[in-house]
Formats: sequence, C-alpha cells, structure tokens
Amino acid sequence: MYIRFARLGAMTLVVAWFSAAAAQTDPLPSWNDGPAKQAIVAFVTDVTREGSPDFVPPPERIVTFDNDGTLWIEQPIYVQFAYALDRVKALAPQHPEWKDTQPFKAVLEGDMAALGAAGEKGAVAIVAATHAGMTPEEFRQGVKEWLATARHPRFGRRYDELVYQPMLEVLAYMRANGFKTYIASGGGAEFIRAFAEERYGIPSEQVIGSRIVTRFERRDGKPILFRMPQVDFVDDGPGKPVGINQVVGRRPVAAFGNSDGDLEMLQWTTEAGKRTLGVVVHHTDAEREYAYDRQAHVGKLDKALDAATVDRWTVVDMKRDWKTVFPVRP
Amino acid sequence: MYIRFARLGAMTLVVAWFSAAAAQTDPLPSWNDGPAKQAIVAFVTDVTREGSPDFVPPPERIVTFDNDGTLWIEQPIYVQFAYALDRVKALAPQHPEWKDTQPFKAVLEGDMAALGAAGEKGAVAIVAATHAGMTPEEFRQGVKEWLATARHPRFGRRYDELVYQPMLEVLAYMRANGFKTYIASGGGAEFIRAFAEERYGIPSEQVIGSRIVTRFERRDGKPILFRMPQVDFVDDGPGKPVGINQVVGRRPVAAFGNSDGDLEMLQWTTEAGKRTLGVVVHHTDAEREYAYDRQAHVGKLDKALDAATVDRWTVVDMKRDWKTVFPVRP
Repeated sequence: MYIRFARLGAMTLVVAWFSAAAAQTDPLPSWNDGPAKQAIVAFVTDVTREGSPDFVPPPERIVTFDNDGTLWIEQPIYVQFAYALDRVKALAPQHPEWKDTQPFKAVLEGDMAALGAAGEKGAVAIVAATHAGMTPEEFRQGVKEWLATARHPRFGRRYDELVYQPMLEVLAYMRANGFKTYIASGGGAEFIRAFAEERYGIPSEQVIGSRIVTRFERRDGKPILFRMPQVDFVDDGPGKPVGINQVVGRRPVAAFGNSDGDLEMLQWTTEAGKRTLGVVVHHTDAEREYAYDRQAHVGKLDKALDAATVDRWTVVDMKRDWKTVFPVRP
Repeated sequence: MYIRFARLGAMTLVVAWFSAAAAQTDPLPSWNDGPAKQAIVAFVTDVTREGSPDFVPPPERIVTFDNDGTLWIEQPIYVQFAYALDRVKALAPQHPEWKDTQPFKAVLEGDMAALGAAGEKGAVAIVAATHAGMTPEEFRQGVKEWLATARHPRFGRRYDELVYQPMLEVLAYMRANGFKTYIASGGGAEFIRAFAEERYGIPSEQVIGSRIVTRFERRDGKPILFRMPQVDFVDDGPGKPVGINQVVGRRPVAAFGNSDGDLEMLQWTTEAGKRTLGVVVHHTDAEREYAYDRQAHVGKLDKALDAATVDRWTVVDMKRDWKTVFPVRP
C-alpha cells in the first residue's frame, strides 16, 4: 500500500516536472494555443530546421516589425504625436506668438478639430517646431525624458510600458532562432531609437523609420549632425519596402504589421514564391486595449485585412490569441 | 656531449615553437611593424580590455571603412565607373542613337576629354542608362557577372581581387574583437553589395553608400523595387556622417579612409572627446600599386592629409607599412 502510494507520488512528480519543463520551453507563453501561435511556431521551425526544403540560412533570416499598433499601443493617438503636442506646450512660453498662430493655437487650446483642419501643412509645422533644430542625440534625450514622465490617458502608465507582451516574446523567440529583428515604422527612426534597445532589445542599427533632413555641420567648433525642419523620407506604405532595402539590402522572410501602412511591406515579403510569414495584428479587444480596423482614424486596417485572405497572412485576433496584452512588470 | 646537444636541440625547438605561435597570433601579418600597425593594435587593445578607462561596450564598437582606395583599388578610374563605361558599350547595339549623342558618343569612342566635358550632367545620364531601369537584385546580378569577366588594365586581375590584403586583416581583426564593420562609401550601396559579403565578409546591411531613387511597384503582378534614373542620396564628404546616422544611428569609434571624401566622416568619428581611431591610407607605392595624393583626379587626398596632423589620425604609408598589397590567392 505504502509502495503504491509512493509510486503514484513519484509519477505525479514526474508529470509535474514534464509540465513545468514544457511551460519553461514554451517560447510564447502569453499566446493562447490556436492558429496564430501555431503559424508562427510552424514557420520558425520549418525555416530553421537543417535539411528542411524551406531552410533559410541565418544571414537571410530577416524579419521586420511595424511599431505603432504592432509592438506598442497607438491609440487614441500615435505616441509620437502625443510627444509632439506635449513639446509644443512645453516650448510655448518661448513662443508667445503661438497663441495666435495655427496649428500651435489649436494644440495649446486642445482644439483637435482646428488641428485636423490644419492638415499636412500643420503637421509639418509641428514636426519642424518639435523635431528639428537639434542633434539626433539631443532629440533622443528629449524623448527619453518625456517617456519617463508622460502617462497614457487611459492606462496611466508610461507609454513604453504599453508594449505588447506577446510580441516581446515573438521578438525573443525569433532572435533565439537566428533571426535579425528589424523595426520598419512609419514613425521617426530617431524617436524609436530612444527606447527600442531597452524595451525591445532592438539596437539602433535595426530601426528603420521616417527621417527628416539631417545635415553635417560644425557647432562651437565641434562636428555634429543637425536635424532640419524638412521631411526627407516617409517610411510608410510603399515606402516601407524602399526603406528596408536602403538599410538591410535584403527582402525579409517574415513581416508583422497591423494596418494599411504595412500592406506593401507584407506583400513584398510574402509574395516571393517561397516559404514566408506575414502576420497582421487585429485589434479586437476593447476591454483590455482597443477594438478597431476598417473605420479607424489611427491604424486603419482595411486593404491589408482583405489582402490577408488573398495572401494567406496570419491574422492575430488580439482578444482570442493573447493571454495578456501588456507586461505585468515591464 | 650528447646531453648538451640534446638540450640545445630542445631549446631550438622551443624557440621555433614560440616564433610559430607569435606568427600565428599576429592578427596583422601583412603589416610591417611600425607606428601604423602599433596604433591600430593599441586602439583595439585599449577599447576592448575590461576595466580600461577607454573600454567601449560591444554594441558601440562601430567602425566604418571607405571602400574605393581604402579597401580596394580606385585607379586609374573608380571601379564602378569602369563598370558604367563597359555597360554603355554592352548596351550600345540597342541604342544606335548613342553614336551621335553625348556623353555616350564619348564613351563609345573612348574620348575621355569629351566625357569630362559632359560634366555632372553627363555622369547622371550614364548612371541613368546603366544603373536604373531594373530591380536591385537584377542590378547586383549584372555587377557580379561583370566582375567575373572584367580585368584591371594594369594588373590583369579581376577588380574584386584587387582588394588590400592588409585591410582584409584589419576587418577580420576588428570583427574578432567585437567590432561591427561597416562600409561607408561614396560609391553606390547596391554596387558594393554585389561583392562585399564574399570579398570583405561584410553583409548587405552593413554597406552604406550612395543611392538612386527606388520605387515600390508591381511588375507582372509581382511586388518589386525598381531603380529610377534619379540620384537620391550622395554618401560622400559631409554626406558620410549623415548616411552612417541613417543606417547605424550611432557615431563610430573608428574610421578608415583615404581621400578628402572621408574628411567629415573622420572628423565626426574622432573629434568626440574620447578614445577613437582615425586612419588615412596614403597611396605611396607607385611600384606595387599607385602613388597619389594632393593632385590626384581620383581619390584626391589634400585637406584630409592636413587634417590628419591636426586630429592625430594614423597615416598609413602603403610603401612602408604594407608587406603585401593584394592577396596572393584571393
């Protein structure tokens, strides 16, 4: 009797061990089992197994991730836009004329309708006032300082804590399998570089984004780069494959996005006549985050949702597929 | 007597062993001992030794190399220019009008004076005719095919065999010490990507260079990038720091160049108030390669030679410092 119980106890222990081992080796613990998780794991397994017909040599294991809405929150407004608005407010005392000048007046008065009416010209004026007139190092330092104090209006947390835990696991999982993880964002490269290494483990040389004109000059006798109030390159939509080629010089074998701004990147990556992975994060969780797609003003997902069917991309249903959304302790 | 000789023999053996070990561990065997070799080794040793006041953490170990005249030959004309001229000749049968149109007429007749007179406008026309109208992959393939058949007029060897053996050793030595080796060239990034991995061990994502406009489009239903006949970015002179920041997002801690086109890159790298390394390859060897500097039409080294004194860059005297110039068997 004693022996039987002892055996049972030992077996239970062994089962517990195996479960623990399985849990420990699950590379994507924040993902529910389902087609999205399976598709990601199957792809990584297929292309990294020596002798597989789909084997991809390590130097070609390039994967690109959109940032806003794919790696971190983008609602109710892009984080970089929140930064620009806060900067306008911070700089306003040095610019008394802004009280009567659009688009600055609209920002200072919180008049989003007037700000919208200022259109692209208004947006460029705000970028010029908040993103130019300094070195890249100074700009990044300003972003870091802002991230340390700014809080998301709904979640009350630092913006760079509102990264997606399941996507952090994908980044780590793919890197552990020899992938080089790149960001390809419509946002500014220097903005993202301010936190990408710390939050995503992605070094500055793996951040591709939009750029303003930057000029070499001497200031106080020292050679520096200086950010000019002029857009140089928009890394969005059809610009994403162009930006990726400029920096990487290779076509990715996998790409993750969440909006129509990622359409061409996903097409270019996956319509290549070989084993590839295209993933679209679909925001379906109004309770834990936001639910939006075809009608959204920010992060509109319409053409890319249709293309997902045509090109057989994996659509992540945030509500169904993610056990958690944000890191508990980032 | 027997014992004494045996001892002597053993000692000789030991000495031979030590010499062999020293030879094996010399990371720069094609460099003569002297100030240039010493400066490179001292820098690498200082910034990689844990606890050193000059220690540089691995992610910041970025080193940039000019290509033409620094990693491979640039005389009597830039290799990429030789490619463009050969392409014009190869394409001429499809363009009968070129017989009477400059700058093509000059190329076909070998009239270098008329070609020079066509100036920048002529150069752009040649770039448009030979570098645009195809995908980046097609362009690189064309460069590879050309490299396989073209021969240098003086040395009779493939152009990509006329890389500098001592510099290949510097690349390998710095990589072995945790440096990420980048090319920062005034030449075209896609041109260099055609051979950089194979010849230098530098992958495409570590090649920074000039660019022509590239556009995303669909051809035969497939998403591609297409090279347009328009200059996008010139990665030369003050453009080099800009291009490095676009791609790497960090200031290098070491830079190697050979001409005034590298001046700003070297200044930006070394005038940083910390331990850095600036190296200028001075072509002083008319016998084994070429001798040129202040008066050169290609690879002019004038301002950067003066700046080398001011900024205490290491000037490599090719004749004095290099045991060999080109690889024996590349």
